[in-house]
Amino acid sequence: MTSRGVVGSQGGRHDESSGTAAPGAMSDSLAGAAGSDASAPLDASGARTGDGSASEEPADFDPARLHEWLDSDARDTRERVLVLLTSEPFRYVDPRDTLAYRETVLQWCRALAREGFGALAFPEEFGGANDVAASIAAFETIAYHDLSLLVKYGVHFGLFGGSIFLLGTRRHHERYLHDVATLALPGCFAMTETGHGSNVREIETTARYDVDTGEFVINTPSPDARKDYIGNAALHGRLAVVFAQLHTDTGDHGVHAFLVPIRSADGTVLPGVGIEDCGLKAGLNGVDNGRITFDTVRIPRDNLLDRYGSVSEGGAYSSPIDGAGRRFFTMLGTLVAGRISIACASLSAAKSGLTIAVRYTDQRRQFGPDGGVEVPVLDYITMQRRLIPRLATAVALDFALKSLVRSFAHRSDDDTREIETLAAAAKAWTSDWTVETLQECREACGGQGYLSSNRIGALRADTDVFTTFEGANHVLYQLVARGCLTEYRDQFGELRLWNVARHIAARAATRVAELNPITTRRTDIDHLLDPDFHDAALRYREDRLTASLARRLRQRIEDGMDGFDALNECQDHAVFLGRAFAERFILEQFHAGLRDCPDAPSRRILGRLAALFGLARIEAGADWYLETGYIDAPKSRAIRNAINDLCRELRPSAPAITAAFGIPEILLDAADPAIG
Amino acid sequence: MTSRGVVGSQGGRHDESSGTAAPGAMSDSLAGAAGSDASAPLDASGARTGDGSASEEPADFDPARLHEWLDSDARDTRERVLVLLTSEPFRYVDPRDTLAYRETVLQWCRALAREGFGALAFPEEFGGANDVAASIAAFETIAYHDLSLLVKYGVHFGLFGGSIFLLGTRRHHERYLHDVATLALPGCFAMTETGHGSNVREIETTARYDVDTGEFVINTPSPDARKDYIGNAALHGRLAVVFAQLHTDTGDHGVHAFLVPIRSADGTVLPGVGIEDCGLKAGLNGVDNGRITFDTVRIPRDNLLDRYGSVSEGGAYSSPIDGAGRRFFTMLGTLVAGRISIACASLSAAKSGLTIAVRYTDQRRQFGPDGGVEVPVLDYITMQRRLIPRLATAVALDFALKSLVRSFAHRSDDDTREIETLAAAAKAWTSDWTVETLQECREACGGQGYLSSNRIGALRADTDVFTTFEGANHVLYQLVARGCLTEYRDQFGELRLWNVARHIAARAATRVAELNPITTRRTDIDHLLDPDFHDAALRYREDRLTASLARRLRQRIEDGMDGFDALNECQDHAVFLGRAFAERFILEQFHAGLRDCPDAPSRRILGRLAALFGLARIEAGADWYLETGYIDAPKSRAIRNAINDLCRELRPSAPAITAAFGIPEILLDAADPAIG
Repeated sequence: MTSRGVVGSQGGRHDESSGTAAPGAMSDSLAGAAGSDASAPLDASGARTGDGSASEEPADFDPARLHEWLDSDARDTRERVLVLLTSEPFRYVDPRDTLAYRETVLQWCRALAREGFGALAFPEEFGGANDVAASIAAFETIAYHDLSLLVKYGVHFGLFGGSIFLLGTRRHHERYLHDVATLALPGCFAMTETGHGSNVREIETTARYDVDTGEFVINTPSPDARKDYIGNAALHGRLAVVFAQLHTDTGDHGVHAFLVPIRSADGTVLPGVGIEDCGLKAGLNGVDNGRITFDTVRIPRDNLLDRYGSVSEGGAYSSPIDGAGRRFFTMLGTLVAGRISIACASLSAAKSGLTIAVRYTDQRRQFGPDGGVEVPVLDYITMQRRLIPRLATAVALDFALKSLVRSFAHRSDDDTREIETLAAAAKAWTSDWTVETLQECREACGGQGYLSSNRIGALRADTDVFTTFEGANHVLYQLVARGCLTEYRDQFGELRLWNVARHIAARAATRVAELNPITTRRTDIDHLLDPDFHDAALRYREDRLTASLARRLRQRIEDGMDGFDALNECQDHAVFLGRAFAERFILEQFHAGLRDCPDAPSRRILGRLAALFGLARIEAGADWYLETGYIDAPKSRAIRNAINDLCRELRPSAPAITAAFGIPEILLDAADPAIG
Repeated sequence: MTSRGVVGSQGGRHDESSGTAAPGAMSDSLAGAAGSDASAPLDASGARTGDGSASEEPADFDPARLHEWLDSDARDTRERVLVLLTSEPFRYVDPRDTLAYRETVLQWCRALAREGFGALAFPEEFGGANDVAASIAAFETIAYHDLSLLVKYGVHFGLFGGSIFLLGTRRHHERYLHDVATLALPGCFAMTETGHGSNVREIETTARYDVDTGEFVINTPSPDARKDYIGNAALHGRLAVVFAQLHTDTGDHGVHAFLVPIRSADGTVLPGVGIEDCGLKAGLNGVDNGRITFDTVRIPRDNLLDRYGSVSEGGAYSSPIDGAGRRFFTMLGTLVAGRISIACASLSAAKSGLTIAVRYTDQRRQFGPDGGVEVPVLDYITMQRRLIPRLATAVALDFALKSLVRSFAHRSDDDTREIETLAAAAKAWTSDWTVETLQECREACGGQGYLSSNRIGALRADTDVFTTFEGANHVLYQLVARGCLTEYRDQFGELRLWNVARHIAARAATRVAELNPITTRRTDIDHLLDPDFHDAALRYREDRLTASLARRLRQRIEDGMDGFDALNECQDHAVFLGRAFAERFILEQFHAGLRDCPDAPSRRILGRLAALFGLARIEAGADWYLETGYIDAPKSRAIRNAINDLCRELRPSAPAITAAFGIPEILLDAADPAIG
């Protein structure tokens, strides 16, 4: 038995704190200060804006029209997924009965497979649509529903199926893709080991080619080498893509992927395979994560996914790619879709949280002028500050991620590396931001936000691990920073990095000289809201941080420091650069995208949101901008005031902006399981 | 069946991300950049400090000795609580079986009551120790264990028992305190209503005095007036302290507290009382939160807790305090112990998280120089930046909160208001910081941190609501800001605020004139690490923000703006001031406390931690300090570098610092319930 939904469905007055809510005591000091004189200036508690109250001055854009335009890529897929997700069988379930929850999630995955959503990225001959953009759109849409479903779906169709498709060759496709697409053959993606997460290249699982039998022998040589946190492993997976060090009689060839059966069709774990349940987690308990060990498990030679490396019957190794390192990164690079998908799904979760929090704070009233009616809490500037720049950020990310998906879908070999850098930046920035955003949404909804009858708590707990899986964000930002440095390298050919750095430093000097003292001091509103100002500020930061990082690395290396140590000394700099890169990209895509919007009122609101996003990023980096002299102190204060003004201006439109996300009501409405 | 513990118990190599951990790909660009030249400068991934590695150069202080000194207040109570918490019956349980979990938590509370921990704050004649400091120390210590236990214990003994003690009179004490202390009479604290959390003064529940029968009649006049989120209400509470608007035939007298029986001894809900379960929550599911409504529930006249207001048999109202507003805030003010306790408990939860995360990152190795052994991840500067300033902050808070507890325990009527301001600041700052800290700890432990076998996830979920209960933090910061303004008022008597503001502005002008251009520019390490610099910087910020807030309010009010609107326009300013006040107080208490430390090596490490905390707060506010000209750009950069250096210097001591928290091993070791 479950009953449904709370927020927004019981009128506008829910509670925002529990226990002794003595913050009413905030009026104490001033009530005291003014004695009992009712006309005393400050005896009321809280505050309100002069011009905002619920639904006053709503923007004149049509949320439905804006939504239709924003979600026009793969619209048909999005709509079909939503039809399924809002159907009766997809009603949310009680997460506490872990076994039942896992079974339900499996059945949901099967339902998605039946509609063909698991095969969208595969070629048509294998039942797919050959449409990776539609596949990511489906993933993004599923993220409006239960996130255990999202992750299980992603593990099976994306990671397991995707690696067979991308790392395997025709015989693997013919043999497996159909069964992957229908979920007839549930699979695992067994890369991470207990001892090696971020540093995949050092995984220890071995695959030794036995020339006598023509088989690979898979082994877990140490406790640290067990495959860990593997989705679908604890219960449902039958076949695993296992990443292991390939050894032949002629030598070691680095990490390769192998298809290793782990369970029979009836679910029995196969001989030589050890499986352990990862147990309860802080979230995502509908996914059966497990640990896998291998003791002399033999698989046919054909089970090597051999697109980038193969072993002949006689044991000869060959690869179309020279160098174990390059081969390894080519293999990993094929999985960049996963990071883009995580970014898109994070954004969907944040949109759900923002929709719930905006609705709640638009209706919930607390405090007000003496003798007057209480004020909706979204009229308070601190609440606006909490939510409205995040609304702008959600829209900015919507443009940036959709643009990235399009680039990815139409990528050529030439821009592979750039897309890898963008995917790392997008995943890290979006997932960090989503966790913070859901926390703000929870607090904005007070005690109400803490109840499971409200979805925010589950969204918060489930997305938490997005910041560390598919690459820990701090490590990804360093990858992005390397991408920034490499971009310069590419212009100069195969120079050693510290030679390149000289060029970068020269370019930076030019840029710094470009700093215009008048611009540094301009505080007029036309300038402050000018998209060119925002673009230039974010671009300047990225360029300057790239140049100074290159300079610092060069200096250390010239002083004889080991490269590894040099980089660690500048690691915080690299992470900062990675974030700056992400923000520049997001703003740039927002500006590029909104120019194409055919509807003038929509374009107008998008322009205001872009201004708010741009200014909010500059404000968040104000210490750096002040430190470098890019802005002066009066300008920093003017930016803060301009953000406050934009928040007040946009506040009446906030509910309409969340409506433009287009999340079906029933998906925002959490299950409220009975306790007993 | 539960199995125990993970972190730190399986050697040093756990995983830090799950799924495709392709961040190993971070070496891609530069491996590519350098071709396959193994001697290329930057082909290794990650980084390490030049001088740090696990257990190299540990500090020379004795953690046990430091712990003993830090926890010397109420040491006997702390030790006795720990003996109980580490005993077999207090083994953690599976949180998913909600009913069993709630029952276990009740039994744990009973065990605490049997040892007398529920009565510590009560007078000796009622079985207590008359020792509020010991009572808070017990609460702080319980927070090393399951936080549902903490909250249920706090609701019954602190809020329910505390309000009978503080708002009731002798006859209430004689009749109830013994049964409260033994938990023979489980109780609720029914203040918050669905429609009113932060704004308690506007609650709608009514208590009408019926002169004919000599009874009060309690009613819930509207759905918004139901008591909500009430701990102990759904299952175990028998008597509730109900806050309601007191009406007599002669008029309305504002909010008062009444003792209302809600269940009989056998657990049957009494006639006229309606109870509903709040259902599943994002955390704290061992607490039976519920909603209560009253339909013409009659209680004897004696059940009014009448210390601050009473009704005679004939219906005449009298109070020792003039004015409903002042009376209301006096009643709420008596509950300030709750806020101090929440701050202390938040810190305990953060200490648990930091202990787990430091231990994990000290042992977990990932990446390293080519051909070399992998490096403990705490050797990376980004990981140090994540955890080590937070270690310093935990120690700073330890001093600040213990000092606050001592002031509270020895308070006089004169400093009541100051302690209220401090309690609000301490609760808001500490609970915000704890939530952020546990998030960083989770991410520092990667996938391992997401498993329930690690305690961090539960700590994170359980402490989340601390930011909004007992007063939403944003509202509390405004209360603090009003306290800052009032402090000035007190110096000038009963002036109207905008007159006061003139004095404040004058004082600010003096302060600003004090800005010394040489100090603004000093970047030598002696100055940067000088505690006087840190104190002066935090104090300057608080003073200047107070003065400018006063000026802004005055200006608006002089322009004819309503006080409520004026305050909203400056609300973000007030919140910023509230935070600045908290940080100044924390640093000041850290400095004052460490001077008393009798052990020189301990004092030395505390001095370094104080320097790190002080600098980290200045760095976090660098935008403001640069904007006001308090520091210049080179100094801002020098501060950043000094923090990095302190992090590197303190890194080898990090495990010993967490050892000085003195948390028993078994409490850090989470239950890992079987899934099936």
